[in-house]
Amino acid sequence: MKSFSDKISIRKPDDMHVHLRQGEILKVCAPESAKWFERALVMPNTNPPINNRERLISYKKEIEEAISYHENKTFTPLMSFKLYPEMKEEDVIKLSEAGAIAGKLYPEGSTTNSEDGIKSWEQIKEALSAMSKLGIVLSIHGEKPDSFVLEREKDYLPELFKIIEHYPDLKIVLEHISSADGINAVITGPANLGATITVHHLLITLDDLIGQGIDPHNFCKPVVKTPKDREAIKNAVLSGNRKFFFGSDSAPHLESAKLKAGGSAGIFSVPAAIPLLVSFFEKNGSQELLENFISKYGAEFYKLPLNKSSITLERKENKIPGKFLDIIPFMAGFFI
Amino acid sequence: MKSFSDKISIRKPDDMHVHLRQGEILKVCAPESAKWFERALVMPNTNPPINNRERLISYKKEIEEAISYHENKTFTPLMSFKLYPEMKEEDVIKLSEAGAIAGKLYPEGSTTNSEDGIKSWEQIKEALSAMSKLGIVLSIHGEKPDSFVLEREKDYLPELFKIIEHYPDLKIVLEHISSADGINAVITGPANLGATITVHHLLITLDDLIGQGIDPHNFCKPVVKTPKDREAIKNAVLSGNRKFFFGSDSAPHLESAKLKAGGSAGIFSVPAAIPLLVSFFEKNGSQELLENFISKYGAEFYKLPLNKSSITLERKENKIPGKFLDIIPFMAGFFI
Repeated sequence: MKSFSDKISIRKPDDMHVHLRQGEILKVCAPESAKWFERALVMPNTNPPINNRERLISYKKEIEEAISYHENKTFTPLMSFKLYPEMKEEDVIKLSEAGAIAGKLYPEGSTTNSEDGIKSWEQIKEALSAMSKLGIVLSIHGEKPDSFVLEREKDYLPELFKIIEHYPDLKIVLEHISSADGINAVITGPANLGATITVHHLLITLDDLIGQGIDPHNFCKPVVKTPKDREAIKNAVLSGNRKFFFGSDSAPHLESAKLKAGGSAGIFSVPAAIPLLVSFFEKNGSQELLENFISKYGAEFYKLPLNKSSITLERKENKIPGKFLDIIPFMAGFFI
Repeated sequence: MKSFSDKISIRKPDDMHVHLRQGEILKVCAPESAKWFERALVMPNTNPPINNRERLISYKKEIEEAISYHENKTFTPLMSFKLYPEMKEEDVIKLSEAGAIAGKLYPEGSTTNSEDGIKSWEQIKEALSAMSKLGIVLSIHGEKPDSFVLEREKDYLPELFKIIEHYPDLKIVLEHISSADGINAVITGPANLGATITVHHLLITLDDLIGQGIDPHNFCKPVVKTPKDREAIKNAVLSGNRKFFFGSDSAPHLESAKLKAGGSAGIFSVPAAIPLLVSFFEKNGSQELLENFISKYGAEFYKLPLNKSSITLERKENKIPGKFLDIIPFMAGFFI
């Protein structure tokens, strides 16, 4: 592999899956996203969830305010809403008019604030039809929560295939894909099925979660898996297949929530993501593959214009900061 | 399956693998072992380790003192020593004379206090020869520490086979066996290869460690694995194969050490083990299989006389206590 120059300039990236949270955490995390990304698709599992027009508008405003105090003001939050049982077409239309580009399907009990999630796609038939007509992307947390933890993604695939069968025109993203089975389903699935890939699922395995001690800062859902799964994810990214694009699934929790027994699931990866990806592609791929993965394929899948601005990355001995507010980021304290 | 009587009396069990620790923790844990077991094989990974005659004698005395203040005074600690590189035959002889019945092999870096462990069986040739001659059992923490966390036991097996090949008369116990591969190796291996099975590897999987949140109280080494591995362990226990016998691997740590980032590996299972095993065998096996597993096969493997006393277990609505000192036991607060 050819080393990158010590200073590279690339099209500004998009993060197609991020949790910005609310209140004080949002004020810290949104500017950090703005530092690295031109746009980010913001997940709706706030409390209360973003599931109607008013909440979507006020959440977007809250995010923009959090950005406005900082130097990187060009950041655009892309909005999503949370699907709920028996959601009506008119509600989807209102959300679409308010700017939503994706509706998120959380299977009941699958992750943070998903106790009110979906049991079966049949509960959201009307919403899925509306989304298909309006060109709104279905974003799926693809796990069957009552399966064995390492097989939840695999066991969700039959439900995914049913949705594909019933809504052949619906665009679907299998989010934060974590297993060889999931990767294979996306590769062999239809062209309107894509997947986001996080930096942590690309780099770490169960060894980093429970291999020595327990590292709660590497605990997320879906959990990081085996070297074989990581290899499949790596191969997907390096294949240049445009179905696979970057979504950080950066999901900050306060340190106190991570360290208690039963620690919250979610890795705050935004501060480390781009430098880690640059290193990964320098070692394994090329600058073109990098740029496609973080700045092009996501926008293309969502039919968004490509960003015009660029970001310059310089080779320096940088350390990932140890803390943001009281949140410990991915690879905190490591040199990157 | 036929339900057990509401009150059963069985030969008093032996725990063929336990960590009693030192100092204040020992004072709490030793009496709890004495409550349930007639004898227990005490692991030598204290700090400093039990690796010479003097330490073995003084550790045994410390254990006996911890017991002496309590009502169950018939408890006998069976002693083991920790193998170290280039250990001499005369050291093994001295330990044998002092009462050691097993020498423990910790691969370097495999678990608590194993930084000074063994890199290869060739480092302990003289000791293994001596043990073989003296009839001292080789007790192995069978993990290759630099392998993927779920494959460490499988990847240790080639080293185990080399030891078996070079010391055909040496009795060997693969401790706290945790995988289908390990079970298969013991079943197909020679008659002088046995294995201890813990109550947690028999009952729980990764789901109980990282399936919802993280539960550091279910974190141990080897880590609990997949339903397939648990099924193999269950089948081994229920087959009545005398190569498999009970060893709790009860390994208390203070709550503070469990809950910190990187929490210590080890489950304090002695307070829950026998009631859980009674329930398991009532549901899946028989009283005879239970008694063989906890009170007979271990003693027979070590050529110890069977215990003459018995323990009476009565069906009551009991809760596992929530805390001992500052140690949270396996299944704390659960009804058993």
